[in-house]
Amino acid sequence: MPSIDLNSDLGESFGRYTLGLDDQVIPLVSSVNVACGMHAGDPAVMRRTVKLAAEAGVAVGAHPGYPDLQGFGRRDIAMSPDEAYDYILYQIGALQAFCHAAGARMHHVKPHGQLYNRAAVDPELARAVAAAVHDANLDLVLVGLANSELIRAGQAEGIRTAQEFFADRNYTDEGLLVSRKLPDAVITDEDFAVARVVRAVKEGAIESASGKLITVKPDTICIHGDNVHALEFAGKIRTALTEAGVEVKPV
Amino acid sequence: MPSIDLNSDLGESFGRYTLGLDDQVIPLVSSVNVACGMHAGDPAVMRRTVKLAAEAGVAVGAHPGYPDLQGFGRRDIAMSPDEAYDYILYQIGALQAFCHAAGARMHHVKPHGQLYNRAAVDPELARAVAAAVHDANLDLVLVGLANSELIRAGQAEGIRTAQEFFADRNYTDEGLLVSRKLPDAVITDEDFAVARVVRAVKEGAIESASGKLITVKPDTICIHGDNVHALEFAGKIRTALTEAGVEVKPV
Amino acid sequence: MPSIDLNSDLGESFGRYTLGLDDQVIPLVSSVNVACGMHAGDPAVMRRTVKLAAEAGVAVGAHPGYPDLQGFGRRDIAMSPDEAYDYILYQIGALQAFCHAAGARMHHVKPHGQLYNRAAVDPELARAVAAAVHDANLDLVLVGLANSELIRAGQAEGIRTAQEFFADRNYTDEGLLVSRKLPDAVITDEDFAVARVVRAVKEGAIESASGKLITVKPDTICIHGDNVHALEFAGKIRTALTEAGVEVKPV
Amino acid sequence: MPSIDLNSDLGESFGRYTLGLDDQVIPLVSSVNVACGMHAGDPAVMRRTVKLAAEAGVAVGAHPGYPDLQGFGRRDIAMSPDEAYDYILYQIGALQAFCHAAGARMHHVKPHGQLYNRAAVDPELARAVAAAVHDANLDLVLVGLANSELIRAGQAEGIRTAQEFFADRNYTDEGLLVSRKLPDAVITDEDFAVARVVRAVKEGAIESASGKLITVKPDTICIHGDNVHALEFAGKIRTALTEAGVEVKPV
Repeated sequence: MPSIDLNSDLGESFGRYTLGLDDQVIPLVSSVNVACGMHAGDPAVMRRTVKLAAEAGVAVGAHPGYPDLQGFGRRDIAMSPDEAYDYILYQIGALQAFCHAAGARMHHVKPHGQLYNRAAVDPELARAVAAAVHDANLDLVLVGLANSELIRAGQAEGIRTAQEFFADRNYTDEGLLVSRKLPDAVITDEDFAVARVVRAVKEGAIESASGKLITVKPDTICIHGDNVHALEFAGKIRTALTEAGVEVKPV
Repeated sequence: MPSIDLNSDLGESFGRYTLGLDDQVIPLVSSVNVACGMHAGDPAVMRRTVKLAAEAGVAVGAHPGYPDLQGFGRRDIAMSPDEAYDYILYQIGALQAFCHAAGARMHHVKPHGQLYNRAAVDPELARAVAAAVHDANLDLVLVGLANSELIRAGQAEGIRTAQEFFADRNYTDEGLLVSRKLPDAVITDEDFAVARVVRAVKEGAIESASGKLITVKPDTICIHGDNVHALEFAGKIRTALTEAGVEVKPV
Repeated sequence: MPSIDLNSDLGESFGRYTLGLDDQVIPLVSSVNVACGMHAGDPAVMRRTVKLAAEAGVAVGAHPGYPDLQGFGRRDIAMSPDEAYDYILYQIGALQAFCHAAGARMHHVKPHGQLYNRAAVDPELARAVAAAVHDANLDLVLVGLANSELIRAGQAEGIRTAQEFFADRNYTDEGLLVSRKLPDAVITDEDFAVARVVRAVKEGAIESASGKLITVKPDTICIHGDNVHALEFAGKIRTALTEAGVEVKPV
Repeated sequence: MPSIDLNSDLGESFGRYTLGLDDQVIPLVSSVNVACGMHAGDPAVMRRTVKLAAEAGVAVGAHPGYPDLQGFGRRDIAMSPDEAYDYILYQIGALQAFCHAAGARMHHVKPHGQLYNRAAVDPELARAVAAAVHDANLDLVLVGLANSELIRAGQAEGIRTAQEFFADRNYTDEGLLVSRKLPDAVITDEDFAVARVVRAVKEGAIESASGKLITVKPDTICIHGDNVHALEFAGKIRTALTEAGVEVKPV
């Protein structure tokens, strides 16, 4: 039976500030990435989120980001690979303690925001991320953009990797994301997007933005839970996968 | 052969700011408490400090504090025991990742500054600290003020505890620290202080501020490395202990 | 014609996090207190909020708080009066620059959260707050809890003060707030609360929690804009005041 | 009588962390740039530093930086010009309040670290910096790298500007700094550097790195007070200027 992981970024609230419909998105996914207090999240949010996820039986992972709460980890911060390694190792460790306290095993690490984007294209940063995951815990899975430098760095580091696929994004002939600067970066036809996800999982192939059939090997698909509309789209994907005989489960 | 642990607070630098003569104090102690990024320290400092300590073969512990870099963890912050638990678990986890990456086993946890002081007298906060240590890792030793609520909480939690003794502080007849508000809180006669440490370790007794002989069971003695004078005093203590046939080693 | 000020705390969003229905509460009030980046708010939020308020023609004031974003300024932080002075002066200055850039005159200062609460009862802290307001700008009005130490400190400092009255809180025979720990702290009967506000403004008297008629001299009334219900209550107060011939305008 | 300003970056301590020999460098300079709490400094340090400078009679300016205490404002943070404007206006305002409280007039603004470097070459960022200075206070002088985009932006904004010259750096034939990546970026011969400063001020000309005579119009020269050696070099410059009949005074 074919299978796929559905993942979502959770635990992005901070203090008095609430973000995300965490309790509603958890039933739709098989794994969650929990913010670790640098770009979002705080220790209390982390404890609650890990507990919620562990009780729901989904796989719990760390979602480390750049140290920039105000920019939500979306602003590039120029730092050496060593600095990045240190920030990531710190955040993985912090989340791991909450997993341990909740009786859960930490399962994976997926970088957040601009750290994710840069590690996809910058080999040195990618190596630093992979090394931090490796040094924190050999059993962790490194989640990164499909076909990116980060996946390659994880493979070179000898750790398990998971290729992430985006349901609502167009791909180039080379299997990379069409830049957000281009008009066809985002797929707005939801039914097409849902059907494409099913095809990607079952057949390992999708049409690129230019219409060419390209090979994809998605291990996990990113689901958003920021608002009601995103939840509906996620629900459609989950339903379509189940109806197509695809099992939704962690990598 | 009688033995005692000498511990020191390390890794208190932050970014461009340097604090403490870490490399000079390490040879004098058997265990170090590393700041975890909330009251002092940052991920890069943590990595370097853990590496330095691991290479020197001293026991490495976490030194969690209140989240207040500007106040250096010395200002009281009113928070619920649950909040304190969350902050402490977070910090222990972060340091544990650096220990793991350095191939070192994390050995103990000693709260910093006002968190240490409050947990010594507040049973609820003490329970929160002990629970965080317990939930992070069952093998950790909780270091606290001798005869304090924190030690009692650790014992009640079923984790190992270490009673900390201060070489340069006077004690009440009940074995508690004389308040810093009183004129005789601090011992200024270094030779007397050094001799008293040796006696405390070898005989389990010291004279209180009032001159009464009281029983003490020190497991570890706090050594400061902030400046050259503190290092000299620490060296005298170490030498006096060795000459008295006391082994300096972790709890 | 009798008059009263209606004030509300605004600009409490931070980065990606949104809080408060600022654009909906502004039409209901005559003055706003803008968070200054320590307990809430950030420079971009401050600019937008000051602009919004200035364009609406309401009086703009600073809403300084303890430096604790995670605790939203509601946790007590033990600090010296000098430290409090420094934090407050800093925040007033920062907001004043945004007022100046928007062509608006900064009108008042109202401490936030636990800083407000503590300055109401702690004469030393109250003096520090009043001194910071005085030293920042002699034309500023200091807004504080009616009959509190903060009002007395402002008067002693020689600056203008405004006594704040709470529509939904019961008062003691001495004109102070009934403690939130007591069951009758909050008034849940909205019609009663609205009628009492009108009476307080027009007659300078209300019934205390014990039923005794006490004298009050409210200069400003606090309005909340956190949610739709709060806005409705605020609207009722504004309407009732207008119908009773009371002008709503800044102090 | 020819004159020149000597400026130095001050107030870079933070909480428990001390940086810079502020009290020793003040007698050597005619103006100081005070850190504003984002890359360095805190409200207490700002108050003390402004007071120290005001009492010494030197001109006080703001030294705003990127919001990155751990990176000391030296790491590039990708932000929009609007965001930069907001951060800078915030910091100028905060320092201005301390100046006002100390009875001093705020005199200038000099961006710090990477904000200074980027504003020297990025016209959009330069415009944002100049606009923030303009909007904060029309009397402020904008200090920037000589011949840089920042100077041009200040002139376009209609505010006063001051061209900064570095005593220990080599210049290209175009009057720009030789990149630090090149071997001859820094002048190590102190006597040569001192003589060149005097010549730059008195004759408006120096030899470029290639030996060509180029025209310079320095308004202010940067002096460092980080360590004893830097202070000695600063003293030599001051003495040489005085002996050459150059008055050291603010722009």
